[in-house]
Amino acid sequence: MTVNKTKVDVRYAETDQMGVVHHSNYLVWFEIGRTNLIKQLGFDYAEMEAGEVVSPVIDVHISYKKPAKYGDTVMIETWLEGYDGVRTTYSYNVKNSAREVIVTGSTVHVIVKKDNFKPALLRKFHPDWHQTYLKLTKEGK
Amino acid sequence: MTVNKTKVDVRYAETDQMGVVHHSNYLVWFEIGRTNLIKQLGFDYAEMEAGEVVSPVIDVHISYKKPAKYGDTVMIETWLEGYDGVRTTYSYNVKNSAREVIVTGSTVHVIVKKDNFKPALLRKFHPDWHQTYLKLTKEGK
Amino acid sequence: MTVNKTKVDVRYAETDQMGVVHHSNYLVWFEIGRTNLIKQLGFDYAEMEAGEVVSPVIDVHISYKKPAKYGDTVMIETWLEGYDGVRTTYSYNVKNSAREVIVTGSTVHVIVKKDNFKPALLRKFHPDWHQTYLKLTKEGK
Amino acid sequence: MTVNKTKVDVRYAETDQMGVVHHSNYLVWFEIGRTNLIKQLGFDYAEMEAGEVVSPVIDVHISYKKPAKYGDTVMIETWLEGYDGVRTTYSYNVKNSAREVIVTGSTVHVIVKKDNFKPALLRKFHPDWHQTYLKLTKEGK
Repeated sequence: MTVNKTKVDVRYAETDQMGVVHHSNYLVWFEIGRTNLIKQLGFDYAEMEAGEVVSPVIDVHISYKKPAKYGDTVMIETWLEGYDGVRTTYSYNVKNSAREVIVTGSTVHVIVKKDNFKPALLRKFHPDWHQTYLKLTKEGK
Repeated sequence: MTVNKTKVDVRYAETDQMGVVHHSNYLVWFEIGRTNLIKQLGFDYAEMEAGEVVSPVIDVHISYKKPAKYGDTVMIETWLEGYDGVRTTYSYNVKNSAREVIVTGSTVHVIVKKDNFKPALLRKFHPDWHQTYLKLTKEGK
Repeated sequence: MTVNKTKVDVRYAETDQMGVVHHSNYLVWFEIGRTNLIKQLGFDYAEMEAGEVVSPVIDVHISYKKPAKYGDTVMIETWLEGYDGVRTTYSYNVKNSAREVIVTGSTVHVIVKKDNFKPALLRKFHPDWHQTYLKLTKEGK
Repeated sequence: MTVNKTKVDVRYAETDQMGVVHHSNYLVWFEIGRTNLIKQLGFDYAEMEAGEVVSPVIDVHISYKKPAKYGDTVMIETWLEGYDGVRTTYSYNVKNSAREVIVTGSTVHVIVKKDNFKPALLRKFHPDWHQTYLKLTKEGK
């Protein structure tokens, strides 16, 4: 299984008055991990958006075990959890400097037309991408 | 059931290059709804944090049906979904100007000591709050 | 002089671990005040962007006197400082609940074509807007 | 003159519907550059905050020449512009992948007591830091 590992230095602006990283920032970190996994698999999300389709999030789940803090460098691990031709699921682990898993999560994505957000198919707009994701999902089983 | 209804004008800074509100902002909007529900129930989250405990999020689920856009005023509906003495669950609907539910979600919270993030009990630090939440949860059943 | 007054409840997510509002958020608040001033003057920034041009910021100055805190409701006062046919300058005061001015600032904006960010003129794309801003600037003198 | 150079990959969440990085994010990037310059000079801002004082921003100036975009990697250059025993000024250049300076800016900081935001002196709480900044400022002249 291909797992992208991306290091992120916690930004001061990401903290809140609880003295820890505000819980909304993990979605931003997941997005960084996802972008980098896509690159590692040979594709480019910025190029996709320069074309006709975009890939919005339709579902998010996050479980928080321990807070991240300013001064920490966290590791985001991202992998393809599943792809059924319509929905793509990515999963994530966030680890702190002590290599403890502090947050886990998953996001589900679809493809839509950029101009009207009508459903579209990866198979049609990015057939290579579709084939690779199908293959990776089968291998994962 | 007590449901807090809070209107929020979409901020330009909340949009992304997809032309819609970035998906991480719904967690910020849920937080606004939650704070206002707590006020409506007679308590004050800012005062809680001035004391010995804080209430971090331990679990988040969000389901996105339609995007919100700049120029929209959205309505956040927030209610107490459950409380078992340790975990408090809030649920949320976000509606657009056409009163369509565009996003639903829930967040689960615990109470921890401010200085060391060790588990604490609402019953001990805010007995009134504990009683009210127990009562509302029973009535909800 | 037309001054827009907009109230904003400080969001928890806007705080940082210093226990106050992170300094970058004042630019977001200025943007809210600016949008509302524009509405008050009879125009609509969202509609402008639906057309051919957008209005990016080219210069920002902010002076911080006192921090805003979670639990505060701040008042953003926004007015048109100047317009010379190319550059529009807005000025801002942010006041806390005690009506003290805690932050002052100004932003300078131009008009550019949406597709290539090449310079454009308000006079050409929004002649009414241009006339109103010229008039207000003269009256201000 | 010591100049810190830090690379930052533009995050999707940092874009707005204008299709470019929202102007408030440059303050977050300046903060990253500043933190790293401080480390390069042998100090640690996270450690300072673990002590009795913090260092809020009291003045900001930003000038925007060209927008940064998603897919870009920008370079933040940060240096100590001046220190008079009370106020510290940092200056910043942000360059795009084509090495063009797209944004310039400066921020002014003071030292205050963490618990009450009353003015404090770097000389008293961090004499080494004070000496180094004085020395660098003199050498810069």
